[in-house]
Amino acid sequence: MLQSPPAEPGAPEAEIDTPALVLDLDAFEANLDHMAALLAPTGTKLRAHAKTHKSPVIAHLQMARGAVGQCVQKVAEAEILAWGGVPDILVSNEVVGARKLARLASLARITRIAVCADDPAQIVAIEAAAAAAGVRLSVLVEIDTGAGRCGVAPGPDAVALAQQIAASRHLRFGGLQAYHGSAQHKRTPAERGSLIAGAAEGARRTVEQLRQQGLECPIVGGGGTGTFLFEATSGVYTEIQAGSYAFMDADYARNLDEAGQPVATFRHALFVLATVMSAPQPGVAVLDAGHKAVAVDSGLPTVWQRPDLRYAGASDEHGKLDVGSETTVPKLGEKLRLVPGHCDPTVDRYDWYVGVRGGRVECLWPVAARGAMA
Amino acid sequence: MLQSPPAEPGAPEAEIDTPALVLDLDAFEANLDHMAALLAPTGTKLRAHAKTHKSPVIAHLQMARGAVGQCVQKVAEAEILAWGGVPDILVSNEVVGARKLARLASLARITRIAVCADDPAQIVAIEAAAAAAGVRLSVLVEIDTGAGRCGVAPGPDAVALAQQIAASRHLRFGGLQAYHGSAQHKRTPAERGSLIAGAAEGARRTVEQLRQQGLECPIVGGGGTGTFLFEATSGVYTEIQAGSYAFMDADYARNLDEAGQPVATFRHALFVLATVMSAPQPGVAVLDAGHKAVAVDSGLPTVWQRPDLRYAGASDEHGKLDVGSETTVPKLGEKLRLVPGHCDPTVDRYDWYVGVRGGRVECLWPVAARGAMA
Repeated sequence: MLQSPPAEPGAPEAEIDTPALVLDLDAFEANLDHMAALLAPTGTKLRAHAKTHKSPVIAHLQMARGAVGQCVQKVAEAEILAWGGVPDILVSNEVVGARKLARLASLARITRIAVCADDPAQIVAIEAAAAAAGVRLSVLVEIDTGAGRCGVAPGPDAVALAQQIAASRHLRFGGLQAYHGSAQHKRTPAERGSLIAGAAEGARRTVEQLRQQGLECPIVGGGGTGTFLFEATSGVYTEIQAGSYAFMDADYARNLDEAGQPVATFRHALFVLATVMSAPQPGVAVLDAGHKAVAVDSGLPTVWQRPDLRYAGASDEHGKLDVGSETTVPKLGEKLRLVPGHCDPTVDRYDWYVGVRGGRVECLWPVAARGAMA
Repeated sequence: MLQSPPAEPGAPEAEIDTPALVLDLDAFEANLDHMAALLAPTGTKLRAHAKTHKSPVIAHLQMARGAVGQCVQKVAEAEILAWGGVPDILVSNEVVGARKLARLASLARITRIAVCADDPAQIVAIEAAAAAAGVRLSVLVEIDTGAGRCGVAPGPDAVALAQQIAASRHLRFGGLQAYHGSAQHKRTPAERGSLIAGAAEGARRTVEQLRQQGLECPIVGGGGTGTFLFEATSGVYTEIQAGSYAFMDADYARNLDEAGQPVATFRHALFVLATVMSAPQPGVAVLDAGHKAVAVDSGLPTVWQRPDLRYAGASDEHGKLDVGSETTVPKLGEKLRLVPGHCDPTVDRYDWYVGVRGGRVECLWPVAARGAMA
């Protein structure tokens, strides 16, 4: 069953039941505006990644500020967005299995939908699903940008797949998927820039070779929160797929700018609100938020605006605080905001966003695609 | 919204949609039986920890094999068990906040419920909640067994809290909570035994001092999958709170026995079933199960019965396999079982257990307390 919302609109933040996923609406809206302003002069479009937020509400807010659509990683996420009225969705990932492909194809009746492929057998399977559903699906070829995960090598291998797609009766060649995941968290702009230059070069070469075969790329997509300005100014990418920019996690905040300072492009908007549930001995304070409440795969959370406190260790349901000095020991029942180390899997642990502004709950939005992994 | 079940009863395992949480029913039942057999000669009772399984179905199966009740960590988990007919529940943790305590107290109308405390102010708050609900609640004092998390020091501090509980009109002194969390994963039996000897010594001393004050301990609880035989044979613990024994994760399987071999007391019963969703280049195979599908806080998952394959890295929706030799590269669409590094937070990512036996789906059980963090 779903969990009940941890507060009602109008309640003060201090009354939100914990652990809760709290969205600072001012910071969140500023992030959406800022991304739109940064991309406008580059001519690239934003197709924001819903793997971060998993919410049709947030998708619509992004599109109201100019995003052309949404990316997702899973068919189950695409379903939630399509059922929530999102009109243009790219599954920026491979989809394998007849059951999943049948679900994907059926969505083409209610939304614009595209999917990626990196194998001839997959294209045959997508064609079969589209034919069975009586729809035409847009398929992008994913190229390996250097991250060594999904995607064929840029150049002839990618061209061959594009030709197979273009020759399939129920498919349409949608362009190239050229996301470089591991570049996002390289700490220096030189490292990030160099990796994206390589990714863009592979994409450019492939676009050229496709053109020589008479195939145009409606989309060349990629770019995350760590690198998107490199892709946006590369001259080859047409769509940016950033997601975390809307929320900003502690790990992205460790990326550095040209001056060697933490990148401050976007504000922390997403928090896990936690309560001090035990403070039994001097110097010990324990929060009610551990592994089940906050993802630690990209580092432990930080304590918001409390440089004297350090989240020192998580167990399943507990977070232990290192208390810097006895004068600042948080009290039993005190609530603290944590900045998650990694937003995407943290959001996925909750059923509700609690939107706050000016210290009060303004709205509740469901994390509608929570757990949508299939 | 909830995710739909990934298969129907009767389907072959190969048709389960992925990622899915698969329970090998033979191994699972053997684990329940084995725990009952191990504890029987010690005279200690099992109060299995539902933080692992989050399922009233599994709670009832454990109790049918002799468990006297269940532990939970959160009020929201207690609610799910109580609503599912579990008759005896201990919240083996502190509960802070009037809203949570009111919910806890209301459960006393339908089940036997107890909770822990480690602070005089908490006891006052629990008394107020019990009085408002018109119920009597059992409260255990948590002692710090050496892990330095929740709990007061053994001895006089604990005795003072017990006396405060016993003197509270709507409370009843329930005993001692003396769980040592960090001992569970110490690799050698000597380390585990030594830590639990210390925990047991603190508990024994406190029990003695309580007795001198005329207070008996109905429960002295503690012991997890890594250490429970030490607690069970200590002569002071009355209840064992193991949870992971039912499933066994990859991390517990790294504990060693007296002979320096991996402890093989229980079988791996819980798996994440995943599909090879991309194999675009020689030596590359990518699964559809990453951070959102399997917890990595206690190490990466292992690939079940495939020593030639190594789960080398997780991103949010992808798991990259290291492929040992070209002859064994798994094929696109092939399904593999992963043994999670850590069961508890992995289970919490799913809405359904898919119970399999003899290669077929036998049952679907909801992870009813999925996300029950409050």
